[in-house]
Amino acid sequence: MANSAKSSRTTVKRLPQKARTDVETLYAVLDSGLLAHVGVVDHGQPIVIPVGYARDRDTLLIHGSSASRLFKLLDSGVPACITVTLLDGLVLARSLFESSMNYRCVMVFGNATRLHGQAEVDALHVITEHLMPGRWEDARQPNAKELKATMTFSLPLDEYSIKVSEGPPEDLDEDLESEAGKAIWAGHIPVIERLGTPIPDLYVPLETPLPAYLATWAR
Amino acid sequence: MANSAKSSRTTVKRLPQKARTDVETLYAVLDSGLLAHVGVVDHGQPIVIPVGYARDRDTLLIHGSSASRLFKLLDSGVPACITVTLLDGLVLARSLFESSMNYRCVMVFGNATRLHGQAEVDALHVITEHLMPGRWEDARQPNAKELKATMTFSLPLDEYSIKVSEGPPEDLDEDLESEAGKAIWAGHIPVIERLGTPIPDLYVPLETPLPAYLATWAR
Repeated sequence: MANSAKSSRTTVKRLPQKARTDVETLYAVLDSGLLAHVGVVDHGQPIVIPVGYARDRDTLLIHGSSASRLFKLLDSGVPACITVTLLDGLVLARSLFESSMNYRCVMVFGNATRLHGQAEVDALHVITEHLMPGRWEDARQPNAKELKATMTFSLPLDEYSIKVSEGPPEDLDEDLESEAGKAIWAGHIPVIERLGTPIPDLYVPLETPLPAYLATWAR
Repeated sequence: MANSAKSSRTTVKRLPQKARTDVETLYAVLDSGLLAHVGVVDHGQPIVIPVGYARDRDTLLIHGSSASRLFKLLDSGVPACITVTLLDGLVLARSLFESSMNYRCVMVFGNATRLHGQAEVDALHVITEHLMPGRWEDARQPNAKELKATMTFSLPLDEYSIKVSEGPPEDLDEDLESEAGKAIWAGHIPVIERLGTPIPDLYVPLETPLPAYLATWAR
């Protein structure tokens, strides 16, 4: 897999100290998220739509409805940008200018390739196991009609950029040293995403236990 | 403010039962989120970048570095799509095809207008009070040099689409009625975002109390 930090569209121009290029960070961010925002261009107008996704080795997988505009556009071969952002915290600097958010963000660029047949089923399996580990074997797997109503795409992790902002604020010396600055509380506040209590639907018999695999889903 | 449900690029074509057009939902989603994903086109290539934002009456406000590619492109007048997605839950249907996520998503289309002078300062105030209520009066406000390094934009909430997916799965009758289907636990699992314990940086004197306004930030 190419590390694409030298391509002009993947060089982080702003705050280069936040830029990362290592595959470990790339994989860690992609493996931690649930939603990606996919951007494509439709007659000159950008559209940005959230989708579930998964990483499979050095590719990114997404799937959706065959009837959706996004997936029809991807199927026509348009370039895409798939961005996964994990919001990690609020950063309260002494100056508002240095105040910001902590986050990990991956942008992947390229043209998605549609998957068919067993490759599509395998990709849906990987996506399911990323979003809902253990569910593939438990729930009813897609039939031919459902597969026809689904489009599944693969995007190579060839051209990407990574930005990571973490830790405490970075205040100016003058704000750290001034009396006014010393009076201001500053620091960061983690943003934490977690799963709540599973809510069975009305058709689940009362005696049905929760699937054991749900216990592994704690985020 | 125009409700734009009749424009072709804001008509929800997929799952129209999930489409909303009411301003109350639009405002509620925008007022609940912290991060927007902004999509623009750069020489035919879509780019999607996360930014902090706020709603001010019937406009969306964003700000960022004057040196960033995204903000330079917006300043050149390119069309934008700003998407705010709140992930609310995982939906575990009896079939994987009907399995999905609960979310609230707003897409806003248009050309952003750069704000200058007092209008920019007012917008930065609104953004700060959305992301960090109470902080504007407490921290050091931006000076002329910092304002020069910042670009701030307003996008009217004229053309938008809203999708809301909520509640339990919607399984096929055949999956509800089959013996195999009856054996599968199904329901939904809330995804909850909350703030952790504030972490002061190394320069905050030990006796400094947490600002009282932080208590109102519970998400």
